[in-house]
Amino acid sequence: MIKVVFLGFGNVNSHLCRAMAESEQVSVMQVFNRTAMQLPKTLQAIPFTTQLSEIKEADVYILGIPDDAIESFSATLPLRDQLIVHTSGGVAMDALSNQNRMGVLYPLQTFSKQRTIALDKVPICIEASAPEDLGLLRQLGSTISEIVVEISSEERAKLHVSAVFVNNFVNYLYTVSEELLAKNHLNFELLKPLILETAHKIETLSPSEAQTGPAKRNDRKTIEKHVHLLKDSPYKELYTQLTQAIETTYGKKL
Amino acid sequence: MIKVVFLGFGNVNSHLCRAMAESEQVSVMQVFNRTAMQLPKTLQAIPFTTQLSEIKEADVYILGIPDDAIESFSATLPLRDQLIVHTSGGVAMDALSNQNRMGVLYPLQTFSKQRTIALDKVPICIEASAPEDLGLLRQLGSTISEIVVEISSEERAKLHVSAVFVNNFVNYLYTVSEELLAKNHLNFELLKPLILETAHKIETLSPSEAQTGPAKRNDRKTIEKHVHLLKDSPYKELYTQLTQAIETTYGKKL
Repeated sequence: MIKVVFLGFGNVNSHLCRAMAESEQVSVMQVFNRTAMQLPKTLQAIPFTTQLSEIKEADVYILGIPDDAIESFSATLPLRDQLIVHTSGGVAMDALSNQNRMGVLYPLQTFSKQRTIALDKVPICIEASAPEDLGLLRQLGSTISEIVVEISSEERAKLHVSAVFVNNFVNYLYTVSEELLAKNHLNFELLKPLILETAHKIETLSPSEAQTGPAKRNDRKTIEKHVHLLKDSPYKELYTQLTQAIETTYGKKL
Repeated sequence: MIKVVFLGFGNVNSHLCRAMAESEQVSVMQVFNRTAMQLPKTLQAIPFTTQLSEIKEADVYILGIPDDAIESFSATLPLRDQLIVHTSGGVAMDALSNQNRMGVLYPLQTFSKQRTIALDKVPICIEASAPEDLGLLRQLGSTISEIVVEISSEERAKLHVSAVFVNNFVNYLYTVSEELLAKNHLNFELLKPLILETAHKIETLSPSEAQTGPAKRNDRKTIEKHVHLLKDSPYKELYTQLTQAIETTYGKKL
């Protein structure tokens, strides 16, 4: 039985807590949060505290707080030689205070309060300062997911940049489309099957095999028509930049 | 029974043909293709020709050929006062020759030879020069999809630009990520659950509600770290441009 305490209860930790609480191999000892709050109904049997001095003993302390608070918060913990892991894609392991053993347990997924996510196919990226802790984190990760991979801080930083491209930037393109359609009184719903198929397509094709469109085939007539349609839009430049990027990648036919 | 002839047998027409052939209300009379080819096994009962002079009588002729061939090919058809529809998002209806009645039947989806797509949730955008043909296209569209919408050429052009953002540009961002990971010997598979959740998230949240990431929260520290990681990459500029675009949309916190 792995004893776990959650420090902070934002999106990531609430998802991890829910999943680990369901495992027979994990005992969630406590949730700490700076401010008082009510745990979700199914988790209300878990002891809760707002006091650092009341934090219980555990095998792993899972930090789920904003990136820029990890360093300072971990230094204020009244714990010594315990395993403290953070859950961030964008922060190196050694941002954690060295008063304790350091580790990372980063679920590579986008979380929001409104959506429950099945974690069993989500890659859990682990890292630990001590080799024996790596085994423990691997064991802990596999209680919630089939995919547990050891990833160094350096690799995780690169993974995180890539995640920004496929998540933040992609979602931004959805936003742009929604706005373009709204301006023309067209329903964004119309694009949803296309959005889903675009994502599902790369389960069986590589993204470069799946690439289509006017920029890929250097269809100047369509591109010019689109640029003209966007002439008063704040997104004309973005259209041009992405079109050029695709043309550069796939090589202009001259 | 609506009698249909397919002119051209690329990705779009092969998907439409497969779906319509299964409908009790459609009779696929013939497939024409410029060059000889073998129809897929399940469609081999359909008569096939490479000769314009042999094209059979039908209620609707569905043109599935490259955008830039629509105008000239439709003018060479040995048909008069028939209903000829094209299937393109990027071409106005009146690109079709006015020797015949004009129409559009545009399935708003991305098609590839390697993937079979269920059309029943795919929006079929229809347009016709004659009001009575609109009814026929609505009826034909509803034999393959639950969603049939009347969309003018002007609206379709705007829909098509938006489709480029959520399909071609989004897929390009997948390509960029795959390349960034490959350079660092990291497996693109790791990002697939994130890619799928990013797409599925907007089934329940609007894209602007779903937006997260360093650019949205103006996290300069992470952004600078990412730009540094990308310093020798051809994608540094794209990262910066998209980050700035998101910051502009969501307003910089100064």
